[in-house]
Amino acid sequence: MTGTLYIISAPSGAGKTSLVSALVEAWPNLAVSVSHTTRSRRPGEVDGEHYHFVDVERFQRMVAEAAFLEHASVFGNYYGTSQPAVEARLSQDVDVILEIDWQGARQVRAAMPDSVSIFILPPSRNELEARLRARGQDSDEVIASRMREAVSEMSHYGEYDYLVVNDRFDQALADLSAIVRARRLRCAAQSQRMKDVLRDILA
Amino acid sequence: MTGTLYIISAPSGAGKTSLVSALVEAWPNLAVSVSHTTRSRRPGEVDGEHYHFVDVERFQRMVAEAAFLEHASVFGNYYGTSQPAVEARLSQDVDVILEIDWQGARQVRAAMPDSVSIFILPPSRNELEARLRARGQDSDEVIASRMREAVSEMSHYGEYDYLVVNDRFDQALADLSAIVRARRLRCAAQSQRMKDVLRDILA
Repeated sequence: MTGTLYIISAPSGAGKTSLVSALVEAWPNLAVSVSHTTRSRRPGEVDGEHYHFVDVERFQRMVAEAAFLEHASVFGNYYGTSQPAVEARLSQDVDVILEIDWQGARQVRAAMPDSVSIFILPPSRNELEARLRARGQDSDEVIASRMREAVSEMSHYGEYDYLVVNDRFDQALADLSAIVRARRLRCAAQSQRMKDVLRDILA
Repeated sequence: MTGTLYIISAPSGAGKTSLVSALVEAWPNLAVSVSHTTRSRRPGEVDGEHYHFVDVERFQRMVAEAAFLEHASVFGNYYGTSQPAVEARLSQDVDVILEIDWQGARQVRAAMPDSVSIFILPPSRNELEARLRARGQDSDEVIASRMREAVSEMSHYGEYDYLVVNDRFDQALADLSAIVRARRLRCAAQSQRMKDVLRDILA
């Protein structure tokens, strides 16, 4: 498998989703993993594109078969990442991104130690709070609770391979791009991709 | 030490020297290590800039003190890389590049396992031979001997962390830049650099 599995985590408000969209746009052979979920499909959502929509029975069978790299229950719905689906992409030399929290990251690291994990941070506490406030007209109490949640997520930054600060969007995007580009240059993957060149050169 | 020690090797004709010059030009806090040598200073060479020029006695004392990360004898002259000098730069958060061959690379890897090694390859055998011929009006015999030397150096590509192919110069330079940029984002180095930000964010 020459592809790389990327785990990307961030507190909400750090800009992870926009960064990941731009990154996937910028690179060929880089895709966000499509999760399985038991929650109902919302208008506009396409099965197999936004999620693989499955019923609870099917989901639990997959759990029993250890088919998930990670899975979790959120507000009574299940979400999970299928290991066979991810590995199929990786073996086609496609890099796969998982956008998950620190708990999912731990599960994935245990199952796939070659994965590369990246934590995205906001530039400051004030900026994070401003970004969380900008999302709507929420009460101070709601904002305070989101901040606590964000700080709790961020307290796990040390478990990640890379730290990217999203101060200026274009710089953070260039940081993520550099990680992807560098990783593709690793000797093991390159020498598989370049088998013919190497045979010619060393003849 | 938050800086990274880079080992860069290549057969002659691969374009290593031009690439490394452009890389150092492009990045702040990135420098080529200055070697110690016992060979005599040539016109235009500055002591401490091109080399540290020392006599054989001094060089051998440094060998005895295990002061060299790697050293070798070429055409009767000694060349070596001072470990204390390299470590001083790394601890100032400066990345240091060593341009050495596979034998030096092995010595350095043993002494500094956190070093990152990069092998630069030409795009093909024909192109390498063309580049070696372009250097002057050498006999076929001389070219053939240079090719053998190049192939022997290249046979060690598998010992390196990264493989970069110098087909288009700008692309190879962007590859090297991505490796440097990504490496600076590693969690251990980032969290030292960003101590204050992290304290503010996690308060």
